[in-house]
Amino acid sequence: MSGPVVAALGGGHGLAASLAALRFVTDEITAIVTVADNGGSSGRLRGEFGVLPPGDLRMALSALCEETEWGHTWRDVLQHRFEGTGPLGGHALGNLLIVALWELHDDPVAGLELVGRLLNARGRVLPMAAVPLDIEADVLGARKESPDEMSVVRGQAQVAKTRGEVRAVRLLPPDPPAYPESVAAIRSADWVILGPGSWFTSVMPHLLVPDLAEALAVTRAKRLLVLNLEMVTTETAGFSAIHHLQSFAAYAPDIQLDAVLADPSVVDDESALAQACRELGAELHIHRVGMSESPTQHDRLRLAAALQDVLGSGSRPR
Amino acid sequence: MSGPVVAALGGGHGLAASLAALRFVTDEITAIVTVADNGGSSGRLRGEFGVLPPGDLRMALSALCEETEWGHTWRDVLQHRFEGTGPLGGHALGNLLIVALWELHDDPVAGLELVGRLLNARGRVLPMAAVPLDIEADVLGARKESPDEMSVVRGQAQVAKTRGEVRAVRLLPPDPPAYPESVAAIRSADWVILGPGSWFTSVMPHLLVPDLAEALAVTRAKRLLVLNLEMVTTETAGFSAIHHLQSFAAYAPDIQLDAVLADPSVVDDESALAQACRELGAELHIHRVGMSESPTQHDRLRLAAALQDVLGSGSRPR
Repeated sequence: MSGPVVAALGGGHGLAASLAALRFVTDEITAIVTVADNGGSSGRLRGEFGVLPPGDLRMALSALCEETEWGHTWRDVLQHRFEGTGPLGGHALGNLLIVALWELHDDPVAGLELVGRLLNARGRVLPMAAVPLDIEADVLGARKESPDEMSVVRGQAQVAKTRGEVRAVRLLPPDPPAYPESVAAIRSADWVILGPGSWFTSVMPHLLVPDLAEALAVTRAKRLLVLNLEMVTTETAGFSAIHHLQSFAAYAPDIQLDAVLADPSVVDDESALAQACRELGAELHIHRVGMSESPTQHDRLRLAAALQDVLGSGSRPR
Repeated sequence: MSGPVVAALGGGHGLAASLAALRFVTDEITAIVTVADNGGSSGRLRGEFGVLPPGDLRMALSALCEETEWGHTWRDVLQHRFEGTGPLGGHALGNLLIVALWELHDDPVAGLELVGRLLNARGRVLPMAAVPLDIEADVLGARKESPDEMSVVRGQAQVAKTRGEVRAVRLLPPDPPAYPESVAAIRSADWVILGPGSWFTSVMPHLLVPDLAEALAVTRAKRLLVLNLEMVTTETAGFSAIHHLQSFAAYAPDIQLDAVLADPSVVDDESALAQACRELGAELHIHRVGMSESPTQHDRLRLAAALQDVLGSGSRPR
């Protein structure tokens, strides 16, 4: 297999789902991962060492592991979290490995490449920015007692679970530098894929990194937005599929889309959604990509089949 | 290369030195490692998870790593200690990896084998006992103000740095079970090598594990004791080479030695030492094995040459 050259942008479980599917379609994958997590094991490691949060990078690498006993074994080791509530409790071993490699090597990208070699990973994983980031949001009704008040919520973990309505997100520090490798991957791709993932904390942040936004605007690659299976989350209260497209246009007025992939479960009015896609330059593709038994999670084979269809790689020789 | 089948017993830096040399002589190596460390990273992990102390096992595996870029890279990663004084500060990454594998797999030996596969290690590494141990010693003059008083010092780290004279050591719990693989390795070896290493806390403990002591007594293997380069340490205040042999005989009255290897720097009276060796059944071999620039540390090539000579493997085809 070779397949199209793909840059997949996102973070967390959404990006892992997209990578787990993409690996069936191509081995030319570069994942570009948000680095704003401030919760859990990653948040503790940021606090202790001042490093990029490693958790989403670890999950992306694990999703790309070789499909062999060796690859699965090391994926399971990297994904393993220590038991208990002591100093190590809850830390994922892979996070600790990545931080150790960052202490040993000056170049964070070299450390991630070594983890990729351990996993015999298909493709590679890069951080979205060269410095740890925080997400800050203007949220309407973040406090239960003041539903009409706009307030500022800071931290990816806090924004992701806010009870209010996220009206705007920003990065701190603003205008962070990107890695040259990430910029180059977007510029030289056949396809750039945004999403799925937590809308404001995993998908939109890339658009706020100037180098990445510019690369997305000028790349020769086609651009695919994969809509989530859950439209309404704590982050996106009241959002429909069309709201997501409007939100995208607001954050990325200079970026045209070529394709939007949606599960039928999130399509209320197909012609209205198709029209909203056309306004962004995109064709709407409706494919069933959720699991039968767990419809809010992506089925990796269904998503792979849909991506193959959209990316037009179905006829490439393997 | 194949070379003689060797079981190397010890712990800490001494065992690592012996393994780093042995790898030039044979690839049939089984290291059998003390599991009584209660200091540093290992001590903290014992406290948090109740596991065998992983540090000496990690050092032994690292000493056996493949002599390639891959092997050296992963050795350096496993040996790396986190910076700072936070919850992770001072932990060796390899210790954390081993503990994660022990949480994932029921069999501790299987986890160590996987680390060996990562390092493409020559040989394998086994724990001396199947349960975490503590070392307890009767020490004369442990307290400065009472030089003639015998007191009990508990803990490997505490015994290793006691200011008094160690008169006897015990294991807690007494009579711990050994791993069957360790017993089998001693029974089926061509040579069993004891030391070098901290005398009371790394070398003598194996003789206090009943299954290992019995295997050492009945094995068809020849038995080599490698004397330390430093006779007098905090543990062995006032000890000469002959004192070490007398101490060995006291702990292992049923175990005959076949060879004793000593650096010329520790030989005061060669004929007296050779006589003391003969009383244990052993031939004395004197070889220069210390580093020129750091005479209390083993030079791995000099030690390799000496071991090749003693083990009689010099004429084996490579």
